[in-house]
Amino acid sequence: MRLSRYFLPILKENPKEAEIVSHRLMLRAGMIRQQSAGIYSWLPLGKRVLEKVNTIIREEQNRTGAMEVMMPTIQSAELWQESGRYDDYGKEMLRIEDRQKRPMLYGPTNEEMITDIFRGYVRSYKDLPINLYHIQWKFRDEIRPRFGTMRSREFLMKDAYSFDIDREAARHSYNKMFVAYLRTFARLGLKAIPMRAETGPIGGDLSHEFIILAKTGESEVFCHKDFLDFDIPDESVDFDDVSGLEAIVDKWTSLYAATSDMHEASVFESIPESQQVSARGIEVGHIFYFGTKYSEPMGATVTGPDGKEHAIHGGSYGIGPSRLVPAIIEAFHDDNGIIWPESVSPFDLCIINMKAGDGICDDYCQKLYDATQMAGLDPLYDDRDERAGVKFATADLVGVPTQVIVGPRSAANGEVEIKDRKTGERVTVTVEEAVNRLTSGRQE
Amino acid sequence: MRLSRYFLPILKENPKEAEIVSHRLMLRAGMIRQQSAGIYSWLPLGKRVLEKVNTIIREEQNRTGAMEVMMPTIQSAELWQESGRYDDYGKEMLRIEDRQKRPMLYGPTNEEMITDIFRGYVRSYKDLPINLYHIQWKFRDEIRPRFGTMRSREFLMKDAYSFDIDREAARHSYNKMFVAYLRTFARLGLKAIPMRAETGPIGGDLSHEFIILAKTGESEVFCHKDFLDFDIPDESVDFDDVSGLEAIVDKWTSLYAATSDMHEASVFESIPESQQVSARGIEVGHIFYFGTKYSEPMGATVTGPDGKEHAIHGGSYGIGPSRLVPAIIEAFHDDNGIIWPESVSPFDLCIINMKAGDGICDDYCQKLYDATQMAGLDPLYDDRDERAGVKFATADLVGVPTQVIVGPRSAANGEVEIKDRKTGERVTVTVEEAVNRLTSGRQE
Repeated sequence: MRLSRYFLPILKENPKEAEIVSHRLMLRAGMIRQQSAGIYSWLPLGKRVLEKVNTIIREEQNRTGAMEVMMPTIQSAELWQESGRYDDYGKEMLRIEDRQKRPMLYGPTNEEMITDIFRGYVRSYKDLPINLYHIQWKFRDEIRPRFGTMRSREFLMKDAYSFDIDREAARHSYNKMFVAYLRTFARLGLKAIPMRAETGPIGGDLSHEFIILAKTGESEVFCHKDFLDFDIPDESVDFDDVSGLEAIVDKWTSLYAATSDMHEASVFESIPESQQVSARGIEVGHIFYFGTKYSEPMGATVTGPDGKEHAIHGGSYGIGPSRLVPAIIEAFHDDNGIIWPESVSPFDLCIINMKAGDGICDDYCQKLYDATQMAGLDPLYDDRDERAGVKFATADLVGVPTQVIVGPRSAANGEVEIKDRKTGERVTVTVEEAVNRLTSGRQE
Repeated sequence: MRLSRYFLPILKENPKEAEIVSHRLMLRAGMIRQQSAGIYSWLPLGKRVLEKVNTIIREEQNRTGAMEVMMPTIQSAELWQESGRYDDYGKEMLRIEDRQKRPMLYGPTNEEMITDIFRGYVRSYKDLPINLYHIQWKFRDEIRPRFGTMRSREFLMKDAYSFDIDREAARHSYNKMFVAYLRTFARLGLKAIPMRAETGPIGGDLSHEFIILAKTGESEVFCHKDFLDFDIPDESVDFDDVSGLEAIVDKWTSLYAATSDMHEASVFESIPESQQVSARGIEVGHIFYFGTKYSEPMGATVTGPDGKEHAIHGGSYGIGPSRLVPAIIEAFHDDNGIIWPESVSPFDLCIINMKAGDGICDDYCQKLYDATQMAGLDPLYDDRDERAGVKFATADLVGVPTQVIVGPRSAANGEVEIKDRKTGERVTVTVEEAVNRLTSGRQE
């Protein structure tokens, strides 16, 4: 993408309304724009990152055998009356009346609707397990939306729902999502720690929040230090291996980890002091096993091997991509801007033409631009008629991991600079060597 | 995907509520489920097709230089009061009050919001042209939603918005979208004909609808027969070539084509009778040039080369993916079910194991399944414990273009059958030859 043709509205001033660094950087880098309180547009740069996050989430959901669907945003109030949550949900639910005066609502979550889908079709335990998910906009009418897309009213959520014949099978479905979440957050570059959590309005008796440690986190968390070195299950993990998954989950739940809601000081203090981590955290995922809470009132039953009807055992599993983007920025930034993990960077590299219009600079940049695109990479090429300083600042702010700097002096020697955004390290290489380094292993 | 693990709720009976064939087939093939009047969930098979359609739309939008954003579904009423459309829009607009009693609405379209984004950042003609699009859910509270997702209340729309300094530049932006639409529909397997159209609540004085001819179309259309043989611009089309694009658009608008709203019988009758096409059509896209209709009341201006402020000239460009899916089915089906064009088929091939549990059948199916996956294809493998007849009916209903049938008799001879869903032709080949044919050109 040529920056001269890209819609990247960089803000020079620090926006006053932004209280935390991720909100500030997302506004300054032209990733989002507030449309109303707690309601945001994602501009081209932001949309790219959001899609990268969605893709990783989707790949890890699919790996477990979960299947993607798309449920609507607007739901009928009737379903929520069936489950009994219509009145419980309070003012966070955006209630709507359509032109026929029917009571509707903007879905804050989808347990009822997915249970309705399930009961519409599935009759036998032989068709289980089933796990269906979607990545769809939700609305929760927070009284005090803040921190940009970290706590917005309209937000994107991946929510998965599992259906099983009994508690034991449901536990395996829960473990699948637990492991998928470990892998998802690791691929996003995050260290997420599962912590026992309260179940709130979703219900049930088993629940984990996945928390990343960040200075600006919204809540206090407490955990054993060893968590930080636990291995993440690799691609070869077999999601059908019941005891294998159980072992992973057992390990990841073997040590103390709790949010302040669930914190037991006496237990925490029994950990050797050098191993105690007390920090701020950001919740980036939440999983629930709630048994028959929805299936019983809503009549979602299947015939079991015993020939009898059984209410299915369910769980739900949420990740908020529109919250993960700022969470990643909270974890990866410096004074100059964002430092994206490669897996979610909006572009693979940034080519900086220090003197647009200079023959050699233009040639070299074009060569790098073409070669990296041919290799399947996605370069952002700063070809604007701007001062070099402005270009450096832009590149640092938007945080693409690798910069290639083409200036008239080094170009006259056939050379360009490659700069690592994270470390600031620069190496000077020939333009051919730069192409080699950038595309090695990527040429198709 | 193994069908035994896939959520594909096939309906055996014809659903009574479905008036048109696409609605019937989408319900029968387990693609969608109605949640409320005019509000649908997309089940796994439907979601796959919807995503394929989105991908083609996105690729062709990006090719023109348009940039993807994501605007929220919920909008503030204030923006619509600024443009003057808040009162105009009538009961189709879903009006909402949030917990702070602020008037909000579920966006039926986004001219106001995108104009607000534009005016928030862009100051100079040098930053033009800009075209921003998103693929997002919209809501129009139709009094009589029907035909499944063909005319639903909550529907997916790709809407693009262009911003230019004057009418001439805006015309080029319009032409870009015109050509992108020709390419998009052609890639979806559809013959779409651009027809002059009324501009309705969007406004402006230049507009084309893209109409596909289908017996079950909602409206009467009239056009010159030669349209059916016009060439589609290929991948090499240069979207910066002003006169080149103009020539394509001139050609595609040189002959008579009109919906009943714009029909002039006397002009139509002047076409030689053998060249007159009078048919039913389905609108699958609609593009508008509306000049300064939104920029003037909303103050979206830029400084021109003359140093003065100019209200920008705008256009908007819509395609409904959730309507395109049934439109494709209307165009491609037979008595047994859907016949997907390859470009949007939910799977690349369907492997039918006529006798699951039989050693050779299982082996051959597994071999085909593994080899096609290795080659980057996406097979649906019917490994269920069902009668062959049920499997044949399922495969025909879901409409994957190529079926590979593995039965015990031919398998004993080392052979399998490849069936073309569209023509019904079958060829018997060795399993190795089947792998070769299916993966040729796909091996990576």
